[in-house]
Amino acid sequence: MSEATTSQSTRIVLASRPEGAPTADNFRLETVDLPEVGDGQILLRVVYLSLDPYMRGRMSTAKSYAAHVELGDVMVAGTVGQVVESRYDGLEPGDYVLAGAGWQSHAVLDGSTVRKLDPQAAPISTAVGVLGMPGFTAYSGLLKIGQPKKGETVVVAAATGPVGSAVGQIAKLKGARAVGIAGGPEKCRALIDEFGFDAAIDHRDPNFADKLAEAVPDGIDVYFENVGGPVQEAVWPLLNTYARIPVCGLVAQYNGADLNRKDRLPGLFNSILTKSLTIRGFIQSEFVKEMYGDFLREASAWVRDGKLQYREDIVDGLENAPEAFIGMLEGKNFGKMLVRVAPE
Amino acid sequence: MSEATTSQSTRIVLASRPEGAPTADNFRLETVDLPEVGDGQILLRVVYLSLDPYMRGRMSTAKSYAAHVELGDVMVAGTVGQVVESRYDGLEPGDYVLAGAGWQSHAVLDGSTVRKLDPQAAPISTAVGVLGMPGFTAYSGLLKIGQPKKGETVVVAAATGPVGSAVGQIAKLKGARAVGIAGGPEKCRALIDEFGFDAAIDHRDPNFADKLAEAVPDGIDVYFENVGGPVQEAVWPLLNTYARIPVCGLVAQYNGADLNRKDRLPGLFNSILTKSLTIRGFIQSEFVKEMYGDFLREASAWVRDGKLQYREDIVDGLENAPEAFIGMLEGKNFGKMLVRVAPE
Repeated sequence: MSEATTSQSTRIVLASRPEGAPTADNFRLETVDLPEVGDGQILLRVVYLSLDPYMRGRMSTAKSYAAHVELGDVMVAGTVGQVVESRYDGLEPGDYVLAGAGWQSHAVLDGSTVRKLDPQAAPISTAVGVLGMPGFTAYSGLLKIGQPKKGETVVVAAATGPVGSAVGQIAKLKGARAVGIAGGPEKCRALIDEFGFDAAIDHRDPNFADKLAEAVPDGIDVYFENVGGPVQEAVWPLLNTYARIPVCGLVAQYNGADLNRKDRLPGLFNSILTKSLTIRGFIQSEFVKEMYGDFLREASAWVRDGKLQYREDIVDGLENAPEAFIGMLEGKNFGKMLVRVAPE
Repeated sequence: MSEATTSQSTRIVLASRPEGAPTADNFRLETVDLPEVGDGQILLRVVYLSLDPYMRGRMSTAKSYAAHVELGDVMVAGTVGQVVESRYDGLEPGDYVLAGAGWQSHAVLDGSTVRKLDPQAAPISTAVGVLGMPGFTAYSGLLKIGQPKKGETVVVAAATGPVGSAVGQIAKLKGARAVGIAGGPEKCRALIDEFGFDAAIDHRDPNFADKLAEAVPDGIDVYFENVGGPVQEAVWPLLNTYARIPVCGLVAQYNGADLNRKDRLPGLFNSILTKSLTIRGFIQSEFVKEMYGDFLREASAWVRDGKLQYREDIVDGLENAPEAFIGMLEGKNFGKMLVRVAPE
């Protein structure tokens, strides 16, 4: 692919809305002509495409915090790419940038919407991972809402993922005890060996709830909620008085939840009342203005010093994005899910 | 009854634990001999006995924030009384005090556990009402957790009660719009005429949910939760992004909730996530150290200046406390429920 003459983009659009779990049919690969690069704009070739659970919400029309993707529109995503052509002051061809280009190979974007990256400071892929939105979700939600204190117990699920792994490690850096939940023995081993969690529990274990209870002898002070479902249910009775529950995701119920069971809402509110719980939903964007500078400075240093480990699960080829995304919602990824659309 | 020679107490004890709504059979009136007044102690004659919804929780053994009442023990309550005999420095016979004497006519108490009242500053009954625990529940929960801003909409149920009426009026004093929910046209009229709410909705209205929606054209920013049940359900879809829900009580479900319906918990968490809601359970005691001084100073001035109105529903005679309590849980009271155990 000759970059200098690129005038087309290969992209994946939303072909139909999923009912329950997304399927390959919900996506369509197509090639479109790109517009001319106008004043203030750049032509970007996408290198890494970030796949994140929130995208499931964008595929549906249910009311949410962000607009849904229209049928026929390119799927949204954070991306890291390289400037091919620039009519924007401050960006040159060859520069690497963080951009919201979506699931496509190339894009013409306003230069003001991208952020230039320093490929010497950290691998460029981290800009959509540990040093990007997932890392900041962990940092802001844990520190602003979870507020772990020394010696407290922090529990997080999907713990080898980019949010969960950062939550556990930042909790440790702040002096708390970190208990991670993940699917399968390999991920649980990584929680201890790679990420330094104090305990790891396999949610596929038939005695999962008992194992979790054993792993938190002093109860749970912070439950960083990114999954919902059965993990949430096992956590609930273990919460301490004044426990904090930042809620950034509910991946276990994005494809639908079983509502044909006894109503648990009155019981939830009874716990909220009797334990003086704090439950707080959040989207990281709320805290960008207040905390993003601190995050970038602090997290970059932690990554550089080896105190904040990250793991990437990279799939090659834009055409493989739908399958990787569908698998991620089922927990098949092992680390931050990325699609390498083109070589660096 | 000759006070100086009183050596017995008439009291109401927990005879059996309720299943569902309490009945008269759960209580027993009895007379017991009082112990001698020891060093540092006082003999108190109870004047006002406060009846509050939290007492329903104390009748059950379900895990809660406070110990339950043992069978045969006197029912707990905040009381206002007069010192009959004192062996405690700083209290004299004739002094009025706030004490946790429970459902009884007389008690021997450590003088250090009571607080002397100034009957000139405010009617002594307010010490268990607008200037006591219910008032402080409203003040601390609304200001610390609800944090209403000028122009925002605050909704509270049981709004002619001691907590709800204070919530609405303090919200107004802070520049917010107050919408109250109460049962029946008489209470709704009082919300507007006595307490100065901006709108009042009757939860018995068959079109309650629609009426509530009409009354909050800009949505709900603070829902002060003290009832749960159908009111909570009507409030839910009307909450704005970043809405705050202090939870201090769930009187509609204290006697049991209907769990035989579809599970609403996943939907609740979806709302928490997509609207970045804050739900925070609390007991006013958490904030006493931090805020009680401010509360007493500020609320006393508001009461004195007529800016914070209160309404009392007084029943005469200790023997009538069970019936009054049972009725209160059904919303039959109209204002702060008190039992006048003896004349002032």
